[in-house]
Amino acid sequence: MHPVLVGREWRPANAVGEFSAHDPNTGESLDEKFPISDWVDCDLALTASAAAAEELDLTPPDSIAEFLESYAQKIDDAAQDLSELASRETGLPVSPRLLEVEVPRTNGQLRQAAAAARSGVWREPVHDESSDLHTCYGPLGPVMIFGPNNFPFAFNAISGGDFAAAIAAGNPVIAKAHPDHPGTTRMLAELAHAAASEAGLPDATVQLLYGMGPDDGLRMVGDQRLSAISFTGSRPSGMKLKAAAEAGGVLAYLEMSSVNPVFFLPGALREEGSKLAQELAGSCLLGTGQFCTCPNLCVLVAGDDCDHWLSEVSTAMADREPGVLLSIATLRSLERSVAALAAAGASVVTGGARLDAPGYRYQNTLLSCTGETFLASPSALQSEAFGPATLAVVAADEEQAVSIARAIEGSLTACIYSATDGSDDQLSSSLMTVLRRKAGRLLNDKMPTGVAVSPAMNHGGPFPATGHPGFTAVGMPAAIRRFAKLDCYDAVRPERLPACLRTPA
Amino acid sequence: MHPVLVGREWRPANAVGEFSAHDPNTGESLDEKFPISDWVDCDLALTASAAAAEELDLTPPDSIAEFLESYAQKIDDAAQDLSELASRETGLPVSPRLLEVEVPRTNGQLRQAAAAARSGVWREPVHDESSDLHTCYGPLGPVMIFGPNNFPFAFNAISGGDFAAAIAAGNPVIAKAHPDHPGTTRMLAELAHAAASEAGLPDATVQLLYGMGPDDGLRMVGDQRLSAISFTGSRPSGMKLKAAAEAGGVLAYLEMSSVNPVFFLPGALREEGSKLAQELAGSCLLGTGQFCTCPNLCVLVAGDDCDHWLSEVSTAMADREPGVLLSIATLRSLERSVAALAAAGASVVTGGARLDAPGYRYQNTLLSCTGETFLASPSALQSEAFGPATLAVVAADEEQAVSIARAIEGSLTACIYSATDGSDDQLSSSLMTVLRRKAGRLLNDKMPTGVAVSPAMNHGGPFPATGHPGFTAVGMPAAIRRFAKLDCYDAVRPERLPACLRTPA
Repeated sequence: MHPVLVGREWRPANAVGEFSAHDPNTGESLDEKFPISDWVDCDLALTASAAAAEELDLTPPDSIAEFLESYAQKIDDAAQDLSELASRETGLPVSPRLLEVEVPRTNGQLRQAAAAARSGVWREPVHDESSDLHTCYGPLGPVMIFGPNNFPFAFNAISGGDFAAAIAAGNPVIAKAHPDHPGTTRMLAELAHAAASEAGLPDATVQLLYGMGPDDGLRMVGDQRLSAISFTGSRPSGMKLKAAAEAGGVLAYLEMSSVNPVFFLPGALREEGSKLAQELAGSCLLGTGQFCTCPNLCVLVAGDDCDHWLSEVSTAMADREPGVLLSIATLRSLERSVAALAAAGASVVTGGARLDAPGYRYQNTLLSCTGETFLASPSALQSEAFGPATLAVVAADEEQAVSIARAIEGSLTACIYSATDGSDDQLSSSLMTVLRRKAGRLLNDKMPTGVAVSPAMNHGGPFPATGHPGFTAVGMPAAIRRFAKLDCYDAVRPERLPACLRTPA
Repeated sequence: MHPVLVGREWRPANAVGEFSAHDPNTGESLDEKFPISDWVDCDLALTASAAAAEELDLTPPDSIAEFLESYAQKIDDAAQDLSELASRETGLPVSPRLLEVEVPRTNGQLRQAAAAARSGVWREPVHDESSDLHTCYGPLGPVMIFGPNNFPFAFNAISGGDFAAAIAAGNPVIAKAHPDHPGTTRMLAELAHAAASEAGLPDATVQLLYGMGPDDGLRMVGDQRLSAISFTGSRPSGMKLKAAAEAGGVLAYLEMSSVNPVFFLPGALREEGSKLAQELAGSCLLGTGQFCTCPNLCVLVAGDDCDHWLSEVSTAMADREPGVLLSIATLRSLERSVAALAAAGASVVTGGARLDAPGYRYQNTLLSCTGETFLASPSALQSEAFGPATLAVVAADEEQAVSIARAIEGSLTACIYSATDGSDDQLSSSLMTVLRRKAGRLLNDKMPTGVAVSPAMNHGGPFPATGHPGFTAVGMPAAIRRFAKLDCYDAVRPERLPACLRTPA
């Protein structure tokens, strides 16, 4: 059984159990065993993290930046091995997905975080000389990160965007490995631990646990030694962690679920319906539909072309080779979600069943319902079907399309496709006003599945998509602000100010 | 019984009960009756607020600024009447406290918020032309504000800093009046309602309820039609509202309690002990100790001068005329807090009892304990004694003083007084590192009770002082950020961008 990374070193776990990952292509268990820790490990990690936080306050930002950069380099150097292992554990293809797309994205995030740590751009100093007040952001404190299963590198608890952002602001991280890819996470943690030691960071700046019992997990996230948790995953798990963390005054940054509505207005379908049917199918099935920004809901307005267009989408989805899902849990959850959508009144247009093949596979699935049906059960009909499935809602008219928009819960994205000839402009304008409140990112004439790592990106949105619509999880330096505390210095003697405040603007 | 301001107008309440304010100088009930609303009023207010939020999105920022400015002017014009009424309800003196200090502060906040609304400085646009991504902050949605009793204007739910900040970002506000000064709040609401109508703001931009049953209150704060609550008050009430709001995904900004530790290092006491004894007594008793930033805990290091200095503080406190407390609840809570401190091992040095006089009065109170006693029950010995009381902790040595700092919970402020001759520098440096994590504002050689309204102010801090240490409740434009949502526009057609994004930087 693999050791855990707690305190200054890898050490045997105080385990209450063990688990292994599975190969999604076959459903077979992989060989390596990973521990489920008991409270002793959790407690040690929390204490070590609190001590590391104080030491990190006295650590030069250059050392933090060097760590992030050398860690990125180590990931580059090990990219082939990492991608092969991650592919075994997740079923995601090595090439181009893991090796050429996700590894560079991950390293880009780490390097952008390094640049932000070095420049201090995230500190945003504000001076009021006349009142002798000086304010900046400073490190928040220990952060515990729960990464998702769908991006084993770019959102991994020990290498992803949350990790990079938390470290950039000088916070220690306790990473909780996702049980679907513990081996990948272990390999990353080895690299991170080596890089942290070489950069002279305090012991316990980076720690790793593979799992803990549910009670210990909830106890841990509400512990006063933590300052924040960051979670990406399912809504039920997220809501439990949120309640436990917030009861203890620990900040909970969560990315939980999102249906990412796409509105296809009548003029747009008239102008280029066939092209849009292909675009929708492609976006829905990207990564076997296992993207947080996958369009799980699309809305159109009833009309002559509507049925024809839906049949085009259906054909486009059925024609594409079904992919493999990340885990048996993902497969079962998708089965439950499609059944729940059907129970609430949606009809299956294509797909809708598990594939008779080895491993975790499900048909590419399109469902549909009327706007009236949707508005009768808006909550049930927008439960996220994570995987290759989407629900098309056919509004009776434009007014109903706006009512549907109003009934949509908080989402990461919302998109409007409209005509170039101005015929959709009035409806588009009404929808923009409603959808701005519903989503973190509004798109026009473009699918939501691409998430650029840019300072102007917002990967966030209103509840229940995330826990706070004022923050983004992607894009430096903005993503760092989640892990920063506002520090005001009032008549503090100049030599005691942090370096970033010593030279007034 | 007074009507409530719900929807577009003042209307009779759907009341389940009524209450009156009391004159703190006599304890007698005032004549006017205010309603406790049932769920019908709450529900109407929530629906109207959600509709107002959508309309406000289409309202020019200039109209919002005009509202804030004309409201400030109306408060100025009515300052004498407002101050006399507020004084009757709170016992705070008309002059200078209410008329010359709090009214100008309140109007200053409203005018600063107006300037921020007009300039759009709070929107912080970020452009990435190469990716066609444009991001800015936008309005968050309906905000419900619970103001405290201790600042009837500057923190009032319908005129204070939270109100000004929420409105500046284009959000409708549902104000919940504090039961200690409903008449003052009613008069302010009349002015606000008139100003909002004149400025052409949507109906229900500003609404007022005087109270609701506890179940309806908790139901209301977790309602999906709200985006955030903002609360200033006691920790038990704050924690209940926090849990109810956060369970519904509603953001909870809270300012709950703070002991505001002040460390008097040995050299500082040697250099100017008598002056500091007067400063401490003055700060502790300012506003009868009913400031959120009142120093409820001070720490010194055992030595020859310690007992002498404490007797100087004791004399300074006993010599000052005791003030009147805001309410019977404040008086009873102070009695309970002092009893709890004593039960946990603190000794009363001076005061410690209710005054035998009409109204709500308590002796100026100094308690003390050893560092060892404090470290044995750190939680019990830092429960906030809201009112004219402070606990002096005498650390055995410098190391123990640092341990005490480590055991302190999150606070709004933390202060260090140290010698000018360098003799305290080592201890001061250790304390600064520890205290930065504990407080939102660090002070040197200065009492925490002054809170300048400055862009560089932070009136905030780690839990349990507030719910999120990344935000400030005082200081424009930073305070506005609490009520802002991050909006990203991805390939959105230029004519559909908000005005603040149309001219790239």
